[in-house]
Amino acid sequence: MKPELVTKLTQQLGRYNVNDIHADTVMQHRLPNRESISQVCDLFLSVLFPGFFNAVQVGRADLSSYSRKNLYEIDYILCEQICLARRYDCSSHGDELPSDLVDNTKGILEAFFERLPEVGKLISTDVKAAFDNDPAACSHEDIILSYPCIMAIGIYRVAHELYKLDIPLIPRIMTEIAHSNTGIDIHPGATIDESFFIDHGTGVVIGETCIIGKHCVLYHGVTLGAFNPLFRNEEGELPRGQSNKRHPTLEDHVVVYPGATILGGDTLIGHHSVIGGNVWLTKSVEANSVVTIEDPKLNVKTRNKKK
Amino acid sequence: MKPELVTKLTQQLGRYNVNDIHADTVMQHRLPNRESISQVCDLFLSVLFPGFFNAVQVGRADLSSYSRKNLYEIDYILCEQICLARRYDCSSHGDELPSDLVDNTKGILEAFFERLPEVGKLISTDVKAAFDNDPAACSHEDIILSYPCIMAIGIYRVAHELYKLDIPLIPRIMTEIAHSNTGIDIHPGATIDESFFIDHGTGVVIGETCIIGKHCVLYHGVTLGAFNPLFRNEEGELPRGQSNKRHPTLEDHVVVYPGATILGGDTLIGHHSVIGGNVWLTKSVEANSVVTIEDPKLNVKTRNKKK
Amino acid sequence: MKPELVTKLTQQLGRYNVNDIHADTVMQHRLPNRESISQVCDLFLSVLFPGFFNAVQVGRADLSSYSRKNLYEIDYILCEQICLARRYDCSSHGDELPSDLVDNTKGILEAFFERLPEVGKLISTDVKAAFDNDPAACSHEDIILSYPCIMAIGIYRVAHELYKLDIPLIPRIMTEIAHSNTGIDIHPGATIDESFFIDHGTGVVIGETCIIGKHCVLYHGVTLGAFNPLFRNEEGELPRGQSNKRHPTLEDHVVVYPGATILGGDTLIGHHSVIGGNVWLTKSVEANSVVTIEDPKLNVKTRNKKK
Amino acid sequence: MKPELVTKLTQQLGRYNVNDIHADTVMQHRLPNRESISQVCDLFLSVLFPGFFNAVQVGRADLSSYSRKNLYEIDYILCEQICLARRYDCSSHGDELPSDLVDNTKGILEAFFERLPEVGKLISTDVKAAFDNDPAACSHEDIILSYPCIMAIGIYRVAHELYKLDIPLIPRIMTEIAHSNTGIDIHPGATIDESFFIDHGTGVVIGETCIIGKHCVLYHGVTLGAFNPLFRNEEGELPRGQSNKRHPTLEDHVVVYPGATILGGDTLIGHHSVIGGNVWLTKSVEANSVVTIEDPKLNVKTRNKKK
Amino acid sequence: MKPELVTKLTQQLGRYNVNDIHADTVMQHRLPNRESISQVCDLFLSVLFPGFFNAVQVGRADLSSYSRKNLYEIDYILCEQICLARRYDCSSHGDELPSDLVDNTKGILEAFFERLPEVGKLISTDVKAAFDNDPAACSHEDIILSYPCIMAIGIYRVAHELYKLDIPLIPRIMTEIAHSNTGIDIHPGATIDESFFIDHGTGVVIGETCIIGKHCVLYHGVTLGAFNPLFRNEEGELPRGQSNKRHPTLEDHVVVYPGATILGGDTLIGHHSVIGGNVWLTKSVEANSVVTIEDPKLNVKTRNKKK
Amino acid sequence: MKPELVTKLTQQLGRYNVNDIHADTVMQHRLPNRESISQVCDLFLSVLFPGFFNAVQVGRADLSSYSRKNLYEIDYILCEQICLARRYDCSSHGDELPSDLVDNTKGILEAFFERLPEVGKLISTDVKAAFDNDPAACSHEDIILSYPCIMAIGIYRVAHELYKLDIPLIPRIMTEIAHSNTGIDIHPGATIDESFFIDHGTGVVIGETCIIGKHCVLYHGVTLGAFNPLFRNEEGELPRGQSNKRHPTLEDHVVVYPGATILGGDTLIGHHSVIGGNVWLTKSVEANSVVTIEDPKLNVKTRNKKK
Repeated sequence: MKPELVTKLTQQLGRYNVNDIHADTVMQHRLPNRESISQVCDLFLSVLFPGFFNAVQVGRADLSSYSRKNLYEIDYILCEQICLARRYDCSSHGDELPSDLVDNTKGILEAFFERLPEVGKLISTDVKAAFDNDPAACSHEDIILSYPCIMAIGIYRVAHELYKLDIPLIPRIMTEIAHSNTGIDIHPGATIDESFFIDHGTGVVIGETCIIGKHCVLYHGVTLGAFNPLFRNEEGELPRGQSNKRHPTLEDHVVVYPGATILGGDTLIGHHSVIGGNVWLTKSVEANSVVTIEDPKLNVKTRNKKK
Repeated sequence: MKPELVTKLTQQLGRYNVNDIHADTVMQHRLPNRESISQVCDLFLSVLFPGFFNAVQVGRADLSSYSRKNLYEIDYILCEQICLARRYDCSSHGDELPSDLVDNTKGILEAFFERLPEVGKLISTDVKAAFDNDPAACSHEDIILSYPCIMAIGIYRVAHELYKLDIPLIPRIMTEIAHSNTGIDIHPGATIDESFFIDHGTGVVIGETCIIGKHCVLYHGVTLGAFNPLFRNEEGELPRGQSNKRHPTLEDHVVVYPGATILGGDTLIGHHSVIGGNVWLTKSVEANSVVTIEDPKLNVKTRNKKK
Repeated sequence: MKPELVTKLTQQLGRYNVNDIHADTVMQHRLPNRESISQVCDLFLSVLFPGFFNAVQVGRADLSSYSRKNLYEIDYILCEQICLARRYDCSSHGDELPSDLVDNTKGILEAFFERLPEVGKLISTDVKAAFDNDPAACSHEDIILSYPCIMAIGIYRVAHELYKLDIPLIPRIMTEIAHSNTGIDIHPGATIDESFFIDHGTGVVIGETCIIGKHCVLYHGVTLGAFNPLFRNEEGELPRGQSNKRHPTLEDHVVVYPGATILGGDTLIGHHSVIGGNVWLTKSVEANSVVTIEDPKLNVKTRNKKK
Repeated sequence: MKPELVTKLTQQLGRYNVNDIHADTVMQHRLPNRESISQVCDLFLSVLFPGFFNAVQVGRADLSSYSRKNLYEIDYILCEQICLARRYDCSSHGDELPSDLVDNTKGILEAFFERLPEVGKLISTDVKAAFDNDPAACSHEDIILSYPCIMAIGIYRVAHELYKLDIPLIPRIMTEIAHSNTGIDIHPGATIDESFFIDHGTGVVIGETCIIGKHCVLYHGVTLGAFNPLFRNEEGELPRGQSNKRHPTLEDHVVVYPGATILGGDTLIGHHSVIGGNVWLTKSVEANSVVTIEDPKLNVKTRNKKK
Repeated sequence: MKPELVTKLTQQLGRYNVNDIHADTVMQHRLPNRESISQVCDLFLSVLFPGFFNAVQVGRADLSSYSRKNLYEIDYILCEQICLARRYDCSSHGDELPSDLVDNTKGILEAFFERLPEVGKLISTDVKAAFDNDPAACSHEDIILSYPCIMAIGIYRVAHELYKLDIPLIPRIMTEIAHSNTGIDIHPGATIDESFFIDHGTGVVIGETCIIGKHCVLYHGVTLGAFNPLFRNEEGELPRGQSNKRHPTLEDHVVVYPGATILGGDTLIGHHSVIGGNVWLTKSVEANSVVTIEDPKLNVKTRNKKK
Repeated sequence: MKPELVTKLTQQLGRYNVNDIHADTVMQHRLPNRESISQVCDLFLSVLFPGFFNAVQVGRADLSSYSRKNLYEIDYILCEQICLARRYDCSSHGDELPSDLVDNTKGILEAFFERLPEVGKLISTDVKAAFDNDPAACSHEDIILSYPCIMAIGIYRVAHELYKLDIPLIPRIMTEIAHSNTGIDIHPGATIDESFFIDHGTGVVIGETCIIGKHCVLYHGVTLGAFNPLFRNEEGELPRGQSNKRHPTLEDHVVVYPGATILGGDTLIGHHSVIGGNVWLTKSVEANSVVTIEDPKLNVKTRNKKK
């Protein structure tokens, strides 16, 4: 490669940013990065399900020291990544950085870790829900070892706690790592109650302002989305974040079959309802509803065999 | 993080299991783990397609010693993982563990390896099928290097042999590893004949009791599923496993276009049939059928441009 | 494992190839491999978005030397992989290999790198497009860190340049690596203009001969495919490659909602059109069209609760 | 390789053990292993000298959480390795294994960690001693980064605490890891007081029953050894371990120059003595002695140049 | 770095070779490399002492399959490295390469592996010899885990078999890897009988044409060297290799204490002799001799304390 | 481990530093680290001897791009490490840091790289010198692959250039990495002319102010040291660094046999001299001298065999 070309490339590449103020910020500070956060996700899975994901033997007597070392490693890496995210967030918004950023972040992490036992209990209900709903499952262990929803929902539940504590950037990176591994895309802002099961999962999308009750089941390819993400506010800007309820609400015991699409912030699916495969639903339905597509007319012809 | 909090967390996390008897078992014994089984999957791909997946040069003269060392590494890791899986399975069911677990497992593996040449031949027919069906493919090598179905079907074919030998846990972990990498979710219990092609593949689901004939083609987003997984037997429990035929049968030379859904254990698609995109099919069709949706009425309006 | 069995296996496995002439070639020469090309993809992301994907701090002053070293590493690995691909391609087609393969390849790479600043600019427009279209996005940095379309489109844009230079095998392996990580399957032959956004992305398929204009938006599960890939030419063979326009064209500012399918090489979607969710479209529509499915009749019944 | 040969080799190799009872034990239980203990040594160095040995930045505010996570990782790995060592030791001696092996080991580790601050202080005195004695040293940091004695003495000081707690096998493996890296061979049983410096270090040997006072300095190639390790006791067996004082004693402020050899358990070097290079000493000397070799007669001839 | 400088450097560096014909050869062919041979050394240690060097548990039942997979991995890597070494050796000497290089090499390896059980037995005698001679050793396991001579002698014994089969380059790289790890430098050409022990070991040098009998013991810093390596033959060239006996012979049961130097091809140390520390010996001694330095006159003065 | 103990340990460990001002500095800034510098050493060896140390094939045509990428990686890592070292050095000395630290460092590196071709030529003379002096060497390639002096002298020659440019900390870490791998301890401040050979090498020490001429040869265990490093200046401090000539000078064509010790800054060994094994020399000798120990009186007794 000709040296002049490399020089030109190094001058022109990496200028990804359309906003020059941000460009300064990126270069001066480190950003959080996917590699470290991916490591944190692995550690959470090791703490939640010790012995299932890597080759180490965890004898009973050692369980507490195994988890303790993993928790301290989470604490160390996550604290650093959150500090980087907050520093970046402040400087990109022109906000003042707390002078005690590290201690302040440690306080937030303390609050987060206080929530972790509750998160662990919720995930236990998800494992049980998978077993109760899938006739192909042989045992709870089978589910933890080979069902993608456990990773997707587990990481979502952890990320959701960070989201509620207003941590920037990190929660989304966490759920996107789960999305990349499972094809299940859950926004960390979604609110999901206990005993949640997603079967197969590829192509599931659950938006930021969804609310999902207890004992709901989704199949692969289900979208819980915004009716029209392209409406702008009066300034011509998109209203961003949780304040703008754009995604539907599912009450308890709702089942949604493969490929169904439910849209809109006011759309409420009443408890014990069943939404059939491929249904396209933009309005609320009452409790105990069964919604199916009127059988689409199928044309069945005999094939012309000359091929 | 306050020490008391960590102590509390280590006491409360990792208690994922709703069944206390199992909890004992998990802690006392090692489980099979995803990391080791993922390594086994890589080794199978190296044996089936030497030289395609990693950077090592395999000269012709060395091919046999390359494969031999990989086979012995598979033998070693897989034997250990299967022993762990069987031991776990026995203790969780309260069954007695064979006193000669390792030797007994080696016997099973011997039977499995006897089947491997046949598996290799089937996978060769899959490569050829991909080439014959995709106009974007340039060569067989192109397909092995860049078509996700080769990994998904290849690992399924290996896992299916283990499934037929009643190995617990491992086959499902293997196909889930392929699912995570390709978005193609094939249950190891499915029965799939030669020359099988899946194009693109993301979102394909093939259930445990599917039977698929020779020369079938699926596109992405196709579901071959259970009609209603929520029916319970009289005891209110789900009948589990292969004995309960819940998924459809495809005879030879069936093509199913993107997004189609075929459901039910009694649903049989006759040979040389073509199922169109997005079709939702819950009944059998005769051989040589062409099934399409009656063109859905499309509303085409001119857009209001004031946005 | 009995020694005779291993000997039998090593004789029979790895004979994947239906075409014996090719088998010779594979064994004698190295092929390009996924491991090395995956490394190249990571390096491109590091050059395009320095500091976002790995843990290294990139101080402002060092940016150019950081990018320079990464560019030379790309140059080195990619040159080797392309030489392997070209040598393989020549021998499998019976073509003569250029005597100056390495120098000739370096010339091609030079041309490729000349295009890279332009590619970088296009990707910047994609980042901006994501921010402008998704109300859940907080900042450009948020998008680079946690939107799968950035990896999928970024790697596609790089691979497309190699595709245009007639490099065999490599471009498809690159986009398949992105597909495996994101569920977004873009053929490197597709032609995509600036400011392109894909939301969520799982299950998106964009075919080899697609043409997509500026400022288009796709949601997850959208297929831009061939009408019928099974038509054969008069010799009974599939016409392969770009010469055969089989996939649709989208003009500027087209939005396609989740699950929509647009098929056929003559299908043209006029600018500023909106294609609704799940629409199945095989004909052209004029500019400013809004195409939706006529509301499918939904059956809403009250559920029989005795379950 | 012919299969019969491999079978023969697998039957005959690994039977390293001359003692058949031990052979059983080795096969049934895991042994501690060098890989894990090497990892523990690295972690101790990270805790004792945070920021000096690996690439991670340790900001001041994070120092405590960085050390905490490393301490818990040491605790976890070391506990496992010590349990393995003790179990092995018991079964090879026919002793009964404590029923509460893990808890008992945790108690021992607690005692060990209580000693660690004292160990840290001693190592600080060693750093200072190196600076005070070597005119080539620029700063304390220079010494920690580039003097092999810091690793050798640091790991010895840690291993010595484990030795005093009667942990079998592990302490020797630790100091041998340091020996391999530095050429300095200190037996973990040796007793070494504060402010100890070894310059260059290659070839230094310090035996199990040595006693070394404060502020001593050794150069490379110094041996503090046993007078005659081949004397047997009446049963014709070697008396083993610390009970048999076989190595010399150095009082405070002793300097020993390169290549000197001091032998014997009754040999005592009085304080403030200097032992010259290459001296071979088997008897005690009083305090303040300067011991040198009478200048060996050197023959100096002019060289015959016809070579 | 200025591009022109890099260009200059890439033109000038790597031209290490003073012999232009060789330079061609190096560039055209691969050489064997230290990384791969280091891996082979680790595998030999795993086969000779299963369970001692890495973290894997080897249950009794699995020992044979563990060793079998390791042997095949040795076979694969070593075959490749030997082929590279032989090809290089031929082309640098202008010899013709055997047309069946790989098969011919496999034949050599077969002969090598036939010798391996004998090598294993010799190494067992070395372990026992260490236990019998060192009062600080607690058990045979202690010795395997923490005595550097086990690695140094073990790798020497393997390399010596390759040396006897006239394999170029590889044996020396193997013993140099052991030298780097232990400070013990044994030339693979040396002939060493059973039950050989080296204590501490740093600085030991054993030359190419040494012959060492049974039950010999060396301490650290012992040199068994050539009397004068600088004598030239009539052509002014050094006679190279084994044909030129330049290093001493030790009969059975010889003990050599630290720092002793024994030189010359005709120097023979009779059986049961003891050579004292620091002795410089260039002539033969009869059996049962005890050779010590006449006590060097030591000057012992009282130190001038004004420092 | 009890939480209070961990808290206590984290408060007390890592306070290694006896100088509180420095302690502040360490915590606030990153230090250079061994891991990164070890990587730089590997890269230099790859640039100086492409193809010898790792498994990558370097075809002739690719040599320049292989070296170019390695040079840029050296440039990147070394620049960062030098900046860290200089920043640390300034703050620990209270000096002002240059405002253009990075650019200034790049200038220094430019000067360093300008010297590299000269360094490469010197190292070529060292390879040739090893071949000319060791009858056990088969070829230049044999020497590069298996002689420790190549790594030790090669890294010294690179480090010496950095030392001459007043880079703090880094050069010593580099030569200490070589020392750890080879047992050869060369201070980067020493001045060594072309064609330098060290045989075996373990235990060699070459001090900071040594001057060594062309075509010198050292054997293992040779010390070129300071006469008395413990003399203090009037302030009771050690005079530090190069200004204080403390180590000997060897003119051209000097050979020093194993275990010899040459001390003192005024000691000059005239050209073509030979210093015998174990000689202890503290005075100058004229050119063409042959210095040996007068044969030490050896006591040869017959052994008392009753043992």
